[in-house]
Amino acid sequence: MMPRVFVTTQPILGTELQISGDDGHHFARVLRVRPGEPLAVAWQGRGYLGEVTSVDASAGVVCLLVTEALPSHESARSVYLIQGLAKGDKIDDIIQHNTELGVAGFLLYEARRSVSKVDLRKRDTKLARWQKIAQEAASQSQRDVIPEVSHAQNTKDVEAWLRCLRDPVLLLLDESETTIGLYLALSSAEALAEDASIVLAVGPEGGWDESEREDWVSRLHARTISLGPRTLRTESAGLAAASAVFHHFRQLGG
Amino acid sequence: MMPRVFVTTQPILGTELQISGDDGHHFARVLRVRPGEPLAVAWQGRGYLGEVTSVDASAGVVCLLVTEALPSHESARSVYLIQGLAKGDKIDDIIQHNTELGVAGFLLYEARRSVSKVDLRKRDTKLARWQKIAQEAASQSQRDVIPEVSHAQNTKDVEAWLRCLRDPVLLLLDESETTIGLYLALSSAEALAEDASIVLAVGPEGGWDESEREDWVSRLHARTISLGPRTLRTESAGLAAASAVFHHFRQLGG
Repeated sequence: MMPRVFVTTQPILGTELQISGDDGHHFARVLRVRPGEPLAVAWQGRGYLGEVTSVDASAGVVCLLVTEALPSHESARSVYLIQGLAKGDKIDDIIQHNTELGVAGFLLYEARRSVSKVDLRKRDTKLARWQKIAQEAASQSQRDVIPEVSHAQNTKDVEAWLRCLRDPVLLLLDESETTIGLYLALSSAEALAEDASIVLAVGPEGGWDESEREDWVSRLHARTISLGPRTLRTESAGLAAASAVFHHFRQLGG
Repeated sequence: MMPRVFVTTQPILGTELQISGDDGHHFARVLRVRPGEPLAVAWQGRGYLGEVTSVDASAGVVCLLVTEALPSHESARSVYLIQGLAKGDKIDDIIQHNTELGVAGFLLYEARRSVSKVDLRKRDTKLARWQKIAQEAASQSQRDVIPEVSHAQNTKDVEAWLRCLRDPVLLLLDESETTIGLYLALSSAEALAEDASIVLAVGPEGGWDESEREDWVSRLHARTISLGPRTLRTESAGLAAASAVFHHFRQLGG
C-alpha cells in the first residue's frame, strides 16, 4: 500500500490538489507514481482518496483529483504513551511502532533512572527528528493524524501536558504492582467513560525510582498496574500495553 | 531483576543445586552473584527460588540452596506465532520480544513473498541461533519455559506443526480482510474453549500472496482476521496481536 501524504490545504471533492515539496519529490521521483494511479491524502484528521492526474518528475510535483472522502482510520479511543527516556535508538523504534499502532501522542519523560537525557540546547533538534519519525510512520500506516511528540523534564511538565488531554486515565506500568492488572484497570468506571483518554506510562530500562513512583501516584493520580509476571523491556512494554488497550475497546479491527 | 537459569536437573526443595557451564560462568563471572543472594531457576516449566550458597568464580560454578517453588509465570492460554520470514535482524527482534511477552512457540514460515529464505544446508545453524535468542529472552523475562523455534518451508510443514498443538485456532492476519477483527474471532466458541491454543500467522514484508492465502484457508482452515485500518509492519504485527490475545484472556496482568 502506498504511503499517505499529509497535506496542509483542504482537499475538496471533485477538485485538483497539488503536492510539491518533499512529498511531491518522494511521490514523483522515488515512488514514481503515474497518472491514473490512486493516492490517499490526509488533512486535519480526515483521509481522502484521489487519482493522480499529472506528474512533473523534474519539478517534483504531483497533481491529484480528489474523488472520495475515506472512513476514519483513527481509534475512537485515544491512547497516549508517556515513555521514560531510553538509550540509543530505542526511542526511534518506540515512536515508529506505536505510531503505526495508533497511539495519539507521545511524551518522552526524563525519569530519574533514565541514562539518556535530552540536552535542553539540543531539545528542539531532537524533537524535530522524533516528530519526523512519527510523520513517516503515520504516512506508512495510513493514519489520518500525525501524533505529537513532546518532552518532559519532570513531573511538573507531565502535569501540564496531562492538563491538555480529555479526561486522562493515567496508568503507570509498574513491576512492583502485583494485584491490579491492565484488564482490571480498564474495567473501572473511569476508564470506561466514553470520553476518557488512556495514558500509559512506561519507565526507562532501570524502571521507576521508589520516590518517583510516589510522586506519580500522589501528585499525578496515576494508578500503578501490572502486565503480569513476565518482565517486558522498556522498548516493548508500551507497544504491548497499547495493543491491549486498543483491543479492549475494540479498536484493533473490532 | 536477575535473569533466570534454565536447569536440566530437577531442583528439590531444601537441597543444593549446582550451576556450571555457560550459566555458571555468566552468574559467577559476569553478573558476579554472591553467597546469600536470591536466584531463580526454572526446570521443565516450573520456577524455583533459591539462595546462593557458594560461588567459585575461577571455575564458573554457583551453588544454590532451593528454598521455594514459585507460582507459574506462564500464560494459562497458549499463544503461538507463525511468522513469515522477514529480512535481516527482524526475526531476531520478533523472537526476543514475543518470547518476553509469553508466546509459547514460533514457526518461521517461508512465505511466497519472503525475500529472505533459509538455505536448508544452514537451517540447523540458523535455528540454533534463533533458539538461543529465545532462551536468553525467556531467562531475561522470568519465564518458566523456553519457546521452541521451528521452520516451515511450505504449508505441508505448517500442517504437520499444527498437528502437535492442542486444539489450534489458526488466525491469519490479513490486510484484505475488512469484516472480521481479532476481537470477534476470539469471541467465537472455538477460541473460547478453554483448551484451545491461539495461533497467529503474520505475513512477510510484502504480505500474503493471493493463492497462498487460499491455501491457508482451504487446506489449514485458517480464519482471516483484520487488525484494523492502520497498517502494521511485519515486525510489530505479531507482538500487537499476541498482546491483544493475552489481554483478551486476562493473561497480561489479569
